[in-house]
Amino acid sequence: MPRFALKIEYDGAPFAGWQRQADQASVQGAVEAALGRLEPGAHTIAAAGRTDAGVHATAQVATVDLAKDWDPFRLSEALNFHLKPAPVAILAAARVAENFHARFSAQERRYLFRLVQRRAPMVHERGRVWQVLNPLDASAMRAGAAHLVGHHDFTTFRSSICQAASPVKTLDEIRIEELEIPHGREFRFYLRARSFLHNQVRSIVGTLERVGAGAWAPGDVAAALAARDRAACGPVCPPQGLYLSGVSYETDPFA
Amino acid sequence: MPRFALKIEYDGAPFAGWQRQADQASVQGAVEAALGRLEPGAHTIAAAGRTDAGVHATAQVATVDLAKDWDPFRLSEALNFHLKPAPVAILAAARVAENFHARFSAQERRYLFRLVQRRAPMVHERGRVWQVLNPLDASAMRAGAAHLVGHHDFTTFRSSICQAASPVKTLDEIRIEELEIPHGREFRFYLRARSFLHNQVRSIVGTLERVGAGAWAPGDVAAALAARDRAACGPVCPPQGLYLSGVSYETDPFA
Repeated sequence: MPRFALKIEYDGAPFAGWQRQADQASVQGAVEAALGRLEPGAHTIAAAGRTDAGVHATAQVATVDLAKDWDPFRLSEALNFHLKPAPVAILAAARVAENFHARFSAQERRYLFRLVQRRAPMVHERGRVWQVLNPLDASAMRAGAAHLVGHHDFTTFRSSICQAASPVKTLDEIRIEELEIPHGREFRFYLRARSFLHNQVRSIVGTLERVGAGAWAPGDVAAALAARDRAACGPVCPPQGLYLSGVSYETDPFA
Repeated sequence: MPRFALKIEYDGAPFAGWQRQADQASVQGAVEAALGRLEPGAHTIAAAGRTDAGVHATAQVATVDLAKDWDPFRLSEALNFHLKPAPVAILAAARVAENFHARFSAQERRYLFRLVQRRAPMVHERGRVWQVLNPLDASAMRAGAAHLVGHHDFTTFRSSICQAASPVKTLDEIRIEELEIPHGREFRFYLRARSFLHNQVRSIVGTLERVGAGAWAPGDVAAALAARDRAACGPVCPPQGLYLSGVSYETDPFA
């Protein structure tokens, strides 16, 4: 059966997360249902990142085996037609080798977290950023983030229900961009790693926000990491600012 | 009575437009209701631009007379509290002179129109841009737009129900910015004028889109303008890409 890779964009708000669930709407369920309209029967797709409830994607990657050797452009157009009106779009489709796997072949995952500081409630970006009212110091957040980059035991920054075999991961980058927005500021956190632990990004950003607010010193982040204790983590921030923004493979299937 | 200016951001989608209506939700109605929670009784506010149904604002300006001499920051905070959960936010409030009027004192209005060309449906920007599927040529649109800048009779680009005394207006600028977005392109139209006719921006952008698509030559825009005939206009584009993005006064009340 020919295997296809799909690049998928979605708004996480109406979904219980990526993963298919018996009784709740999921992104996986929506895409599999659309596939079922093209080729009758059950389909199971594998994704690079199993995002949580409320988390968005601008470039999730999933693989699926189909009976027919679809033209990739027609496949994406047909899936988009059947996905309506769900806020899920197939940005690209590509024919890939049988040993290509969206999850196991991934070499790097990238996440973006959008944090906004403003007094007035967000209107146009509502549900797409995490808003706080207090001013934030980007330099302090960058100093705190520097302690987390590299090869570490991230037990502190990992959900208690995380199923990864090991809490030891290499975080390749945390870059924090500060932008002016009308009557406020936006802070964009760009994180890169081969793989992430469950809730790792939200645990990190929630902790760095405390540093930005002045409640934590940058060095407290190093101490929290060294503690290897979930209780040492700052508050886990909400999902609506988080985007799975890229997945890299040895060769880009969509190039 | 002390007069206040309010800078207002809103998502136009759930509203029948700026203007208060007896039987439909309006932005004016929402703000006036919030004012009524602060000072009992009826309030009437005047706005710089009476935006149509579905049109957004990032910087609408309105004036209101209140009984109490409110601290401007507390006034905006209290209004935002009472506006929830409507997608309307008071970005700033300021005490202004009694002869300052949001509409009549305005010296320039600025609009932004966001047009996106992409095959896959928009997910994160759904309802906030106008999406087309065909490729667009920015140079051709700029050449077409150049014919409209200046002092002209804009009868062609004016709604048949426009109530302005004269169709003659000076359009100070149409700037078109082209941005790359994932798997598509965005075209941002920035328009500046002392005042605009009803549907003028949407008539202009709808016509320029035809030029970008190659259906019209840039010179056809000059011919349409010269015709001074509503029937010579291209299709009026939908409201969801349009934003009232700025209003200028002799002195910025919010500075």
